[in-house]
Formats: sequence, structure tokens, C-alpha cells
Amino acid sequence: MKPGRGTPRRLKVALLGCGVVGTEVVRLLRDQADDLAARVGVPLELAGIAVRRPDRVRQGVDPALLTTDAHTLVTRDDVDIVIEVIGGIEPARTLLLEAMKSGKSVITANKALLAEDGATLFAAAREYGTDLYYEASVAGAIPLLRPLRESLVGDHVHRVLGIVNGTTNYILDQMDTHGAGFNEALEEAQALGYAEADPTADVEGFDAAAKAAILAQLAFHTPVSAADVHREGITEVTSADVAGAKEMDSVVKLLAICERVPAEDGGAGRHGRGVSVRVHPAMIPRSHPLASVREAYNAVFVEAESAGSLMFYGAGAGGAPTASAVLGDLVAVARNLVGGASGPVEVTYAELPVLPMGETVTRYYIQLDVADQTGVLATVAEEFARHGVSIQAVRQVGLGDDAKLVVVTHRAPDAALSATVDGLRRLDIVRKVSSVMRVEADE
Amino acid sequence: MKPGRGTPRRLKVALLGCGVVGTEVVRLLRDQADDLAARVGVPLELAGIAVRRPDRVRQGVDPALLTTDAHTLVTRDDVDIVIEVIGGIEPARTLLLEAMKSGKSVITANKALLAEDGATLFAAAREYGTDLYYEASVAGAIPLLRPLRESLVGDHVHRVLGIVNGTTNYILDQMDTHGAGFNEALEEAQALGYAEADPTADVEGFDAAAKAAILAQLAFHTPVSAADVHREGITEVTSADVAGAKEMDSVVKLLAICERVPAEDGGAGRHGRGVSVRVHPAMIPRSHPLASVREAYNAVFVEAESAGSLMFYGAGAGGAPTASAVLGDLVAVARNLVGGASGPVEVTYAELPVLPMGETVTRYYIQLDVADQTGVLATVAEEFARHGVSIQAVRQVGLGDDAKLVVVTHRAPDAALSATVDGLRRLDIVRKVSSVMRVEADE
Repeated sequence: MKPGRGTPRRLKVALLGCGVVGTEVVRLLRDQADDLAARVGVPLELAGIAVRRPDRVRQGVDPALLTTDAHTLVTRDDVDIVIEVIGGIEPARTLLLEAMKSGKSVITANKALLAEDGATLFAAAREYGTDLYYEASVAGAIPLLRPLRESLVGDHVHRVLGIVNGTTNYILDQMDTHGAGFNEALEEAQALGYAEADPTADVEGFDAAAKAAILAQLAFHTPVSAADVHREGITEVTSADVAGAKEMDSVVKLLAICERVPAEDGGAGRHGRGVSVRVHPAMIPRSHPLASVREAYNAVFVEAESAGSLMFYGAGAGGAPTASAVLGDLVAVARNLVGGASGPVEVTYAELPVLPMGETVTRYYIQLDVADQTGVLATVAEEFARHGVSIQAVRQVGLGDDAKLVVVTHRAPDAALSATVDGLRRLDIVRKVSSVMRVEADE
Repeated sequence: MKPGRGTPRRLKVALLGCGVVGTEVVRLLRDQADDLAARVGVPLELAGIAVRRPDRVRQGVDPALLTTDAHTLVTRDDVDIVIEVIGGIEPARTLLLEAMKSGKSVITANKALLAEDGATLFAAAREYGTDLYYEASVAGAIPLLRPLRESLVGDHVHRVLGIVNGTTNYILDQMDTHGAGFNEALEEAQALGYAEADPTADVEGFDAAAKAAILAQLAFHTPVSAADVHREGITEVTSADVAGAKEMDSVVKLLAICERVPAEDGGAGRHGRGVSVRVHPAMIPRSHPLASVREAYNAVFVEAESAGSLMFYGAGAGGAPTASAVLGDLVAVARNLVGGASGPVEVTYAELPVLPMGETVTRYYIQLDVADQTGVLATVAEEFARHGVSIQAVRQVGLGDDAKLVVVTHRAPDAALSATVDGLRRLDIVRKVSSVMRVEADE
């Protein structure tokens, strides 16, 4: 390693928060001290740990390092690097900003903060010339942000399709594998610790939406916050949806989708006319690599101009995987400090608008319970045509009173597809629209 | 970006070689010039291109940039970064060493050179304090080396299982999907351009072995060259092997396997007593994420202590994907130059021995055509016991003269398994050992 001016003899690390991830970071810093020193070039030393309740017993954590005064810790002269694993917006944001203002390199696993107010953090990192790393904020230990920030930085990303929430993937996988209903699968996920007592953040897609915002920002070099993300959870996914997908040799997944929307005339610059950022359940073919992501695993599929299709797969959550991602970031920022360098800074030069969901072009799978009479198909087909939606395939299943129609559309704006479904609901011959699901990754 | 001392106003790039990948690099440098400048902080400018035949017409390449004098080009004062896409050992090695000696940052896609003599290149990068990046050398555009070099640098890798050769994966996938024989599948791969006229480097596993050496080196921080890698190709994989795998709900893949071998007493340090680095066909369960890697795609599955299981998937070859990986490296080294920094340097502090194949612990699937007589199973079981190999499952398929026995073993040293197979061949009641395949990723 080429030493920078005034290479430090050691680097001191302050840790904010000492829950599941924090305790694991402390353990890794101790157990892998020799490896880390070899990889960084100088030893890493824990300077202090800010916690709210210093009295609580923490296995393997030296009580002498604990402090309740996080503000003093992050600005201490002898601290070089600050790791934040508190979570939530405040006090995490203020502490990170104070740390950067004091010239510390910072590492955070805080997806909520990055999705809500990443712009403020990125601006501070630029202003104070410090490193801001956050690999652990999306998809746990899967090295995903670093490839997007660094490896694909010379490429042009068209689309990111991600399974970024383990809880919902576990639930959907159980529904697919064992034919379980949503409630039954949720209860099982809760019993196994994959879902929390209040599962709202996961099953309503809030967690995935935060990650989608972070991914879109990185992929398209454009500011996107969680509020910009169109969000639908999985609470309305039924056994009928899952069974319908099976008949199509497909599987239902909750996807975080970040897509560059090309200009309508195909011109208007290579960045396109905007981006679509959304989280919703979708059918994907079983042959797609994302379909084989089982249980609580995460995976992110990236389509780039030169690199083609890439996928990153792994455990998306958990103390050890998250701590591993934090340690990877720690080695990177420590090396930067030893070398007198700084890491990549988020560049949001593209400033693309986030388009409304209605303008997003997608495909629908629609299953209808229909009356058993002649002319049904003609009436249904007319409803699609009226909204300018063209049908790719239609199939009648069952006979007589059990007859159902399965329709898969070609690509059309979501607003037109949605209006078609509303129109179908109003038709006399349609007893029930029993399943509506977007179709992705099937081109 | 924090500017280093004397931030350059532009960075000049020399390109060595202008074949498929080189032409694509030139195109991307031109088409994405604005994006690249935004991401790096200063513009990148092509200073010259060394080629053997300057008269050949190259679409989109300015003939004024061409030179046959590569040695002068790589040491030119105004050149900051040298990209080598010539391939092969010489003159690539000498040119890269000259470039580093002159203080240039270098980028190479040359797996043969890195696998044969990576140590010399790494030593030069350390000695002259220059960057050496080589993402494109393994698995094309899949950002794989960077995660191993940087993201997982704070973790402890136990095992790497990779499908790193697209040609052989295409052939095995055709054999699995369409029941094709090896020769038929090879011919089809050649017709489609997935395999070369002389397919030896691919089908005999030489290409995969070079990549295994590079991966093992990175994963275990220990020197490994291509000659250290145990290598078996796919030319002897039969339709019977593939059909047998199907019966086991498994699939045959050519795997590059890099494994840390724990000390026998479980102690003796966390690095283990050595590493096993090998390339051979193996059966893996269809439920494993690597099983869904189809056609000519590549994927690398990594098992790490904290991060758990990770997989990286994508196009493993081709001009555009490889050029994308080169561009990613280019942005990284350019940013380092602008910031006055240097990238990670290979650290081979572990110095673990590469163990012989016989000591590698694995499992075998064995299919036998046996005589139709009583006591066959006892005689076969005795042969396994004689070599200390324990049987996990045995199954008889067919009746009378068509009877065959399928045996799957527990884990045992490869030497014992191999001796068992030799012993089985010598038994009178065994008409033929019709399939032998190692079983991986099934624990």
C-alpha cells in the first residue's frame, strides 16, 4: 500500500448503537483484529460505543467503552471513523452530520434515513470531503451498492429488479410451495422470527420502498426519496393469484423495480425522459433467476447496457450479514484514510423526474369469473380494446358455471390497464375479477 | 470529490490491443465521455492504441491514435493509465511491468497472465505503488473481484463455487434440457459461436482453472497459480451422467471450487490447514441457486463466515460485458488518481498450502451395471467399507439384466472414493461403472 502523508499508526472507530448488529460488529473487530490490520495496513481500535442504556449487559462488550454521550464521542479528536447502527431518522442524522463536519469518515446501515434524507447526507460528505459508506442499508451483506457505485460506474443501467425484503419473500415462497394463504404464511413467518409482531413495514412494502429509493438514486444518478416510490404490499395477494401464477409457469414475488423510461420518440438524450420507481407484487417466469430466490433470501437483478444482466444474491438481513457489510465498508474507509484518499461520492447530475405510476408501462395478468353464455369473450375483448390495451393471450379454463377467463396483456401504460380492470368489473357478464397481477421480467 | 495535491485537468489512457474488447472500450470511452467525466471529476482522453497491424480497418477507431510501438506508449510521460486487452503471457506481462515501473496505473483483463504469474504483477504494483485492477479477468462484467477484494475484506471466506466458463455451461445445459450428447451439444455451441473451433481450453477446463486460481488467491489471501489447480473437463460427461443427475433432482455443472480445508483437530488457527482449488464436473441439487444458471451465463457462489451465502450472476464473456468491467476499473483508478489515492493491493499473508486432490473431502455418486444375482449389494457395500467410505443412500433401478445400482456416498477423502471406484471395476459382479460424479453443494 502506498502510504499517504502522515500515515496514522492506528485508526480509532466510534460505534453508535450496540444492538444485534452493533454487538456483532464489536465481536468481529475483536475476533478478526489481525486480519483487519493486515488488510488495512494499520490496526483498528474501538474508541467508544454510544448507547442509551449503558447498564444493560452486552456479551463480549467492554463496559469501559460505553457512553451515553454520543455527541461528544462523534467529535472526539482521536476518533477517525464513526459507524452508525442506531437506525431511524433522529438522532442518527444529527450525529452523522456532526461526525462528517468534524472530518470523520462515516459508515451507516440506516436505510430509513438514506431513503428519507439521503440528499442531506450526500451533500455533507461532499462539503466536508469525508467518506460516506452504506453498503449494509440495502440487502444486508450482499455486495450490491459497491458494484453499483463503482463497478458499473462506467456502464449505463437500464433497470433494477430486486427482491429486497426477506419477510415478504418468505411469505410468498410459503404460499407458492405449500399453497398456504397469506395469513397462515404470515403467522408462520412470525413464529420463525422472519416477521415482526407488527409486520406493517414489511408486508405493506415500506421497507422495500426505502431500499428502492436508495437503489434508484445510485443506478440513475438522480435524487429519489421514499415518498417518490409507488408502493403496493402483499396483503392482498391471494392463493388464487399464486395458483394463477403457477398455471402460467410463473411465481409471485414482491419486486422493487427501478426503471429508466425511454423518451417516446426514442431520442431526447440517453438518460430518457424519467425513471419509474415502484414496489409491488408481480408475476415473473420460473425460468428467471429471481424466481429461484427462496425463503428469506434477497436478490437484485440489474440490466445494464454493456454488462448485460447481472444478479446479486444473498442473505438480506440478520446481525452477522449486516455486520459483515459494515466491516467491508470499514476496511474501505480505513484504507482510504491510510492512503490519504476518499471513496466515491454520490453524483446526482442526471436529475431525472420520477414518473407517476399511471405512465409506467407494464403488463397485466387478469383472471375473470364469467357468466356461461355466448359472446362473453367478444365483450371482454372489446373492453380491452376500448382502453387501447392489446391482448397477448387469452385462455378459458373450466366449463359452465365454473368457467373462468385468463387474459395476459401486451405492454401498456398502467393507467390504461387499471382503467380496463375497472371497466371489466362493471360488465354484467363478469361475475368477479378474481386475480390481477402485473407481469414482469418476461420479455 | 476531495481533490488531491495537483489534481490533473484530464487523465490520459493508453490502450494495448484493439480486438473485440478493445474496440468496445474505445466506443464506450467516446459514447460515454460526458458520463465518465462526471463520475471521475475530470475528462478521460485516449492517448494511443498499440496494435500489431495498424493497417486493419477498425470501425470507429481514429487511425491517428494507432501505433505499433507499445513499449514507447506505456512509458510516455503524458500517459496516466494503461489498459491491457492483448491477452496471453507475452508481451502483455513485460508491457504491464514497464507501465507500472513508469508509475502508470494499470488495468488488465488477462486471466492467463494473472493465473500463471499474478505474483509478479502484484509485487510490481506494491513496489511501484501503482494500481492494478483486473475485474474483467474473471466472469466478464459480473462485479465479483471487487466484492471479494473490498466488500468481503472484513469477512472470512470459507468456500467459492463458480460456474466460470460459459461454453461448458452452455453444453451441459443443452445436455440437461434437450438430452443431447456431449458431441452434439458441442457442435451446436460451435455453430452459435459459444465454442471455438478448437474448444480445448474450455471443455478441458483450462479456462476455468485459470479463473479458479485468481479467485482462490483473492478469497484466501494466499498465492495460487493455474498449475496448482486440479483440473477435469467435461469431455467425459455422458448422457448417462446427466440422466442420473436428473433422477437425483440434480444437475451437472462444471464447477470451479475454492475451499478452505479446516484443520483435522478443528483447531490450528482460523485459516485452516490449507486450501483445495479444483475444477471438475459435479452434481448439484436443482434447488441450489447455481442450478438455475442457464445457457452461457456465469455465476459465482460465495460462502463467508458472516455474510453467509452470496451469489453473483451475469454474462461471463463477450466484448461488451468485458469492456463494461474494464470501464468500471477505469473509473476506479481514475478516481484514485484524482484523489491522490491507491486501490487495494493483493495481500497474500496467509500463505496456505494448496492440498492435493486426494486429500479433498467430497462425495461421489456412482452408477453400476450389476449382474442379476443374490448378494450383489453385500459385495458392493463391502468394497465401500474396505476403503472406509460410508454410503448415504443406495437404490436399485430396473430388474434382471437391466438392473443397475445407484450409490451416493457420505463425505470422504477423494483418494478413498477414487480407490473405491477402482475396486468396484475389478469386481466380477460389476459389469460396468456407468457413471461417477462428485456431488457438491448438497449439505
